[in-house]
Amino acid sequence: MAATPIQLDEHGRLRHFLTIENLPRELLVEILDHAERFTVVGDRAVKKVPLLRGRTVVNLFFEPSTRTRTTFELAAKRLSADVMNLNIEASATRKGESLSDTLRTLEAMDTDMFVVRHQDSGAPEFIARQVAPGVSVINAGDGRHAHPTQAMLDVFTIRRHKPAFEDLRVAIVGDITHSRVARSEIHALKILGVPDIRVVGPKTLLPTAIESLGVGVFHDLDEGIAGVDVVIMLRLQQERMQSALLPSGHEYFHTYGLTPARLKRAARDAIVMHPGPINRGVEIDSAVADGHQSVILQQVTHGIAVRMAVMSMVLGSHAQAA
Amino acid sequence: MAATPIQLDEHGRLRHFLTIENLPRELLVEILDHAERFTVVGDRAVKKVPLLRGRTVVNLFFEPSTRTRTTFELAAKRLSADVMNLNIEASATRKGESLSDTLRTLEAMDTDMFVVRHQDSGAPEFIARQVAPGVSVINAGDGRHAHPTQAMLDVFTIRRHKPAFEDLRVAIVGDITHSRVARSEIHALKILGVPDIRVVGPKTLLPTAIESLGVGVFHDLDEGIAGVDVVIMLRLQQERMQSALLPSGHEYFHTYGLTPARLKRAARDAIVMHPGPINRGVEIDSAVADGHQSVILQQVTHGIAVRMAVMSMVLGSHAQAA
Amino acid sequence: MAATPIQLDEHGRLRHFLTIENLPRELLVEILDHAERFTVVGDRAVKKVPLLRGRTVVNLFFEPSTRTRTTFELAAKRLSADVMNLNIEASATRKGESLSDTLRTLEAMDTDMFVVRHQDSGAPEFIARQVAPGVSVINAGDGRHAHPTQAMLDVFTIRRHKPAFEDLRVAIVGDITHSRVARSEIHALKILGVPDIRVVGPKTLLPTAIESLGVGVFHDLDEGIAGVDVVIMLRLQQERMQSALLPSGHEYFHTYGLTPARLKRAARDAIVMHPGPINRGVEIDSAVADGHQSVILQQVTHGIAVRMAVMSMVLGSHAQAA
Repeated sequence: MAATPIQLDEHGRLRHFLTIENLPRELLVEILDHAERFTVVGDRAVKKVPLLRGRTVVNLFFEPSTRTRTTFELAAKRLSADVMNLNIEASATRKGESLSDTLRTLEAMDTDMFVVRHQDSGAPEFIARQVAPGVSVINAGDGRHAHPTQAMLDVFTIRRHKPAFEDLRVAIVGDITHSRVARSEIHALKILGVPDIRVVGPKTLLPTAIESLGVGVFHDLDEGIAGVDVVIMLRLQQERMQSALLPSGHEYFHTYGLTPARLKRAARDAIVMHPGPINRGVEIDSAVADGHQSVILQQVTHGIAVRMAVMSMVLGSHAQAA
Repeated sequence: MAATPIQLDEHGRLRHFLTIENLPRELLVEILDHAERFTVVGDRAVKKVPLLRGRTVVNLFFEPSTRTRTTFELAAKRLSADVMNLNIEASATRKGESLSDTLRTLEAMDTDMFVVRHQDSGAPEFIARQVAPGVSVINAGDGRHAHPTQAMLDVFTIRRHKPAFEDLRVAIVGDITHSRVARSEIHALKILGVPDIRVVGPKTLLPTAIESLGVGVFHDLDEGIAGVDVVIMLRLQQERMQSALLPSGHEYFHTYGLTPARLKRAARDAIVMHPGPINRGVEIDSAVADGHQSVILQQVTHGIAVRMAVMSMVLGSHAQAA
Repeated sequence: MAATPIQLDEHGRLRHFLTIENLPRELLVEILDHAERFTVVGDRAVKKVPLLRGRTVVNLFFEPSTRTRTTFELAAKRLSADVMNLNIEASATRKGESLSDTLRTLEAMDTDMFVVRHQDSGAPEFIARQVAPGVSVINAGDGRHAHPTQAMLDVFTIRRHKPAFEDLRVAIVGDITHSRVARSEIHALKILGVPDIRVVGPKTLLPTAIESLGVGVFHDLDEGIAGVDVVIMLRLQQERMQSALLPSGHEYFHTYGLTPARLKRAARDAIVMHPGPINRGVEIDSAVADGHQSVILQQVTHGIAVRMAVMSMVLGSHAQAA
């Protein structure tokens, strides 16, 4: 029941941010509350606070992702940190250096934080177990395992529209099997007390033991979203569409695409979310993506504030927050 | 006769900078005057003014250009802005995201300004029509259409040497057809009152209706530059040299290359300009490029000041300028 | 006997940093002393001093090197400079622009410093001979010629453990022929008064006239490191292992790899150094690389301080140093 111990220090404070799983509810609420204060920073002309001035943040991306890297880079710059972007595919490992050696070398440069994206589940935790006491690691997505800042920006966006988690019905729709986003979202929603969490998708894209996470399982979209307050659509990866797991994108849309007609089955004031980038006409209809129930772009905006909150918390600089 | 309305706000102030065409003379002079003040910043040890502190500038380059990107990045950094470089070829569009979605996502990160280079004419205006009220777009070169900051740094350089535009004779030499630089220069020189503007080049590289812009057309270089005060040489693109439009680079130089002997036909104190990078021995002789009449490197230096001026003006921060 | 005149100004102060060869002893000591003061900057929460605020540093890498580029970028940022990274392979030269023109263009942007890595020996000096009076050049590694900041961080690390250079015995082990690091180290150790410098390696990897530098030559590792206070292992390049110059990496390790057993032949308190990245099991055993005599990661940390020292000295900003 305890959090992965490595994430918290002996006082229960966040030291690394690797997974939502097993984190205490109060900590998630603390992140959300800090993020709330950072949202105003983005609205100012001078979008900068000096919390991480003179700190060195290294974006360590073993898997390319302009969008996620950009949000972390912006969050770090708005906290006044110095940011280095390292695309590891193209550098050290080419020289045959081991991951451990690369890390120790970067750490020896007095780096304060590593933001890590990696195609292998567990890589950020592997790194967190190696770094020196003062250094923090944030998981920016690892394999199929977790994407905790994405989940936090999702629940942050939900809270802004639906303050009472304990009354909510939330449906997550699409490729659950391959989605680190879905895994982290389910953990976050559970911990925050959402009583009705549903996953919706074809059998080929739902993990076999998914019920063990305490979620309802639906293969029919109309049933799955009936009456829900929040619909979270997942991105369908291109490679999935070309595999035997699925018919074409067009057919997928026919069965699992969110259209205005289908959305009517959800609660009247339901909000629609998506981690982006969206595939219009595959998992979501443009009329829904651009409609008044969509909060997809708000998710992006909140992503900066949530990352600023997590980055300042792991470095212990949140006390004086903006 | 009115400016492309989208570029100006209701008070006639610059909001986007997309094209020179139809801008009022006073606005061009205002840019030049602001740039004049920024030239001193480059001479200081501390080459920084706090005008855009905490603002987020995104360099959105759909067409690679280290030189132009570098000047915009430096201009933004010297204005104390936070700069993000996005090479769009290599990122979002690879995932099949539409340009509009990429833009809205970046905008949702509270970006203040997009500096856009695109291979398609009109792309920066397309973007400017979509962004939110507080966001500005600067065209860093689109297709064959326009390169307005290049034109402004050219007229800025001219004004430093030849203060009275209304007395000038200016020749633009080379591949006019494919040159967004030439188009923007002609507009800027016209608006600033230059009475004698000439384009010089082989028929294959001059647009058919070019006279309608109010310029003289010459196919003979000696005639075209006779008595001019300013010679602007254009870069000959490699692909042009390999096409059927032109003989070899060597033959082009024989007919249209600017040599010391030919330059003698211009006014004695004529200045020689080139947007760079130069092809020595193709459109220009090294003795001219490096000679005392060349102001090619001054153009580069002024390019930073002019971009600082435009960037601070579109964000409404020029009032308190350095 | 005089330093390459171009490196020093008329008062004997460092203007460029191109090679260790022929520099006066006092200047090396001055660099070490400045670096000493910068080591504390890395330990602070706010790892920043304002010495180069508003200065523009361009990392001009003609040969890719994430590690070296990162250390220079971090050093510049911690001095509060604005840094631009230019990978020249991928940009200007693609357009057929000459190196001289690229340089003059960057210089015209009011650049203060070029940090240059180039595959050709002498390229940084070539550049230093062209830049304007106020602009400095730092060699970040050129061909087989020199890597002076690496040598300075090595002697800095040595001095922290073995303060009296005049009593030391130092062995440099491996591929001396192809190593710019070894060349610069030998010069630095000589100038600082180390009486016993040895190079150790197979005949195929030792230059023929190496004795003329005043070093002892050994082909047997056990003999070469007998009693030394410092062992500097060089990286064995992959391409060397695949060439006719050497047997396999495995066989190389058998003959020249540093194992705990062999290290016992050195002085009991000998330190082990390596410029990185290390090839575990090729030139060095993991037990040695990670052992208590290894100072390899300290070298990385000191590399930032030494580069901050050199960067601030060449721009004349060291007087007010942190």
